[in-house]
Amino acid sequence: IHEFESFLSTSLHSISLDIETLQSQIEELSTFSDTPAPSVTRILYSENDVLARRYVKNLMGLSGLSVREDAVGNIFGRWDGYEPELEAVATGSHIDAIPYAGKYDGVVGVLGAIEAINVLRRSGFKPKRSLEVILFTSEEPTRFGIGCLGSRLMAGSEQLANSLKETVDSQNMSFFDAARSAGYAKDNEDLSTVFLKKGSYSAFVELHIEQGPILEEEGVSIGIVTAIAAPASMEVEFEGNGGHAGAVLMPYRNDAGLGAAELALAVEKYVLESGSIDTVGTVGILELHPGAINSIPSKSHLKIDTRDIDEKRRNTVVEKIHQSAVTIAKNRRLSLTEFKIINQDPPALSDKSIIRAMEIATQELNLTHKSMISRAYHDSLFMARISPMGMIFIPCYKGYSHKPEEYASSGDIANGVKVLALTLAKLSQD
Amino acid sequence: IHEFESFLSTSLHSISLDIETLQSQIEELSTFSDTPAPSVTRILYSENDVLARRYVKNLMGLSGLSVREDAVGNIFGRWDGYEPELEAVATGSHIDAIPYAGKYDGVVGVLGAIEAINVLRRSGFKPKRSLEVILFTSEEPTRFGIGCLGSRLMAGSEQLANSLKETVDSQNMSFFDAARSAGYAKDNEDLSTVFLKKGSYSAFVELHIEQGPILEEEGVSIGIVTAIAAPASMEVEFEGNGGHAGAVLMPYRNDAGLGAAELALAVEKYVLESGSIDTVGTVGILELHPGAINSIPSKSHLKIDTRDIDEKRRNTVVEKIHQSAVTIAKNRRLSLTEFKIINQDPPALSDKSIIRAMEIATQELNLTHKSMISRAYHDSLFMARISPMGMIFIPCYKGYSHKPEEYASSGDIANGVKVLALTLAKLSQD
Ligand SMILES: [Mn+2]
Ligand SMILES: [Mn+2]
Ligand SMILES: [Mn+2]
Ligand SMILES: [Mn+2]
Repeated sequence: IHEFESFLSTSLHSISLDIETLQSQIEELSTFSDTPAPSVTRILYSENDVLARRYVKNLMGLSGLSVREDAVGNIFGRWDGYEPELEAVATGSHIDAIPYAGKYDGVVGVLGAIEAINVLRRSGFKPKRSLEVILFTSEEPTRFGIGCLGSRLMAGSEQLANSLKETVDSQNMSFFDAARSAGYAKDNEDLSTVFLKKGSYSAFVELHIEQGPILEEEGVSIGIVTAIAAPASMEVEFEGNGGHAGAVLMPYRNDAGLGAAELALAVEKYVLESGSIDTVGTVGILELHPGAINSIPSKSHLKIDTRDIDEKRRNTVVEKIHQSAVTIAKNRRLSLTEFKIINQDPPALSDKSIIRAMEIATQELNLTHKSMISRAYHDSLFMARISPMGMIFIPCYKGYSHKPEEYASSGDIANGVKVLALTLAKLSQD
Repeated sequence: IHEFESFLSTSLHSISLDIETLQSQIEELSTFSDTPAPSVTRILYSENDVLARRYVKNLMGLSGLSVREDAVGNIFGRWDGYEPELEAVATGSHIDAIPYAGKYDGVVGVLGAIEAINVLRRSGFKPKRSLEVILFTSEEPTRFGIGCLGSRLMAGSEQLANSLKETVDSQNMSFFDAARSAGYAKDNEDLSTVFLKKGSYSAFVELHIEQGPILEEEGVSIGIVTAIAAPASMEVEFEGNGGHAGAVLMPYRNDAGLGAAELALAVEKYVLESGSIDTVGTVGILELHPGAINSIPSKSHLKIDTRDIDEKRRNTVVEKIHQSAVTIAKNRRLSLTEFKIINQDPPALSDKSIIRAMEIATQELNLTHKSMISRAYHDSLFMARISPMGMIFIPCYKGYSHKPEEYASSGDIANGVKVLALTLAKLSQD
């Protein structure tokens, strides 16, 4: 087996990886978008999401994988190993894209995984453990407010399975109506069929762009993720009396928009107060009602994201934000009509033996690598609850992500797919 | 003539005003709305706006008025006087409503004016000067960002006539396409036909709810407006690099949303610094792009409104807001991609002889009255440029306006219509 891997790593250096085809698949997938190129917007269960899923399933089929989908649309493409009763080795990522995002986030880890399978097949490799490529449903929280919806359910979140029964999107469409419109959740609203038992996979590895500037700046080819930062998100709503922007004098106002502005600046303040470079916080959504130039905002709605590699420090920021929202409401005579913690997840650590396999793969491929933290969360954060987990990062242009300028070079993508292929080959023989 | 007015004021005390019908017309008009009751949303040239206009034109016809419309949809209902070559006396207001507004703002001054005409007819009155009821197009700035669009054009704003050639709404529909969809501006884009010469009317009087709490609090029936505050509005846009809410560390961010939050709070600060209760300022619109919980805002867009009865003091606030936007952009390494003054209008003073006519009318009707400032602007602000102007205010519940809770009682509306009828009668005999 070690001999075969040497052969494989030699072959990976040369011709067997078809980067041109992979590149054109990435381009093709980016055309399934609700906004014009170069931006990509692909929202869960939308028409473009359904078309993109069909495209991926076809590629899986062409690569000889047997395809299965679960009730929420997690898609599994399986290559049976010669000991198919062993737990499989899995890899995968997502293809949904937030409004005005780019082509590479998630996509590299799905289309790249299918190409890694192609590489292994072309090389004559036969896996002992089965290999599975997973396309996760809704890694992005865009439509229903919850990130990693598919992997969170796979990891057995009863809480999410229950709350989805009441969940609606901004157009008031229920989660299940949306899922059914895309061909999922047809028979009933029981999502326990999506849950996977702990130990269902012997390993899970995700290939992803770094979404940060470090690898590019330092000229390193591969990042080996040792931990994923702990994300939390909150939803806040203030209500005041509103009124006419000309007629209501300043002392009589309780402006819900100014409450939101204060809270947004408070988030920044508390994050900076943590004293650690690893603490971040963002107000990405701030909406005013009724939203007219001559109307005092009577309602404001914020969504706040904060993350840290240190869970306790992150929780302190969440608590300060909560206290601040209460104080702002009191001082401005507003009602704090909502302060909801959407999620408050612990960090995840990569599995030592998977880290080791990834390191050896980079060495055999003569690629530079460095250990790093993932500050963005990924489906790997939740797969870590049911499987040993590892992540492979590749450089991306200026660290840009979640915007149209997001870019990873062919060479870097090829390196990532090679490391993934070799890592999967190693893990499948364990 | 004085005898007739005594008869008229006596008759106005008793039966000749049909408040039940007027009330039911106000209810009926409120059903032409894009949002559910009790809120009213009626946007310029929308289907509901067109239906509401048709309803008003029918009422004008039933009241024996001859109806004419100009190229932007200002509607004129005329009752010819027995000296029709004299300049007419005009009255009127608007029926458009900002998102989630109420039933009375503007509407009382249009439907109330038609009922005032009915009262005069029923009483056997014959005007010497012609009387005109005007429905003004787009008093509210909702769709195209500019308030008092119809009256501003009537007053001869060449600047507005020119800029409308380039103006589009938030859906990117041009002003002229929207106007044509409602049946206006059919032949060409020349709006000089809308301009009226100075002196076209001998007087203009507008009946309106106070949109402030003073009359109700003091138990006074009628407000006689002596001046309209000077409004200004601005549009601001910041741009930054955006990026992933997890991956971009705080020192590397230039968050366009936080720039907007700072500017919103700065507006409040500068308004309070003016030291006068009469200075107000509002950020009614604050939008973030791309508007995703896990994306740092790369663009923010604000619309700011500030008003004062003192033009110089108001201009100082505008200047401070501009300086602040520049400073915020610099400190946060943002681009200030737009700082546009949408309008910066002077205040208007009511005409002394119209004030006198309104005062005498309230006295003859045994109604209490008080002189007051209009802090909201109205089409009267622009009619004052081409005609002597006056305004009649009636109390409204808690001063509420621009929200569904806006309310004026039958009794107060009836008082306002009586004062308007008597004032028109007086002015038409001058
Ligand atoms: Mn993402
Ligand atoms: Mn991703
Ligand atoms: Mn209004
Ligand atoms: Mn009005």
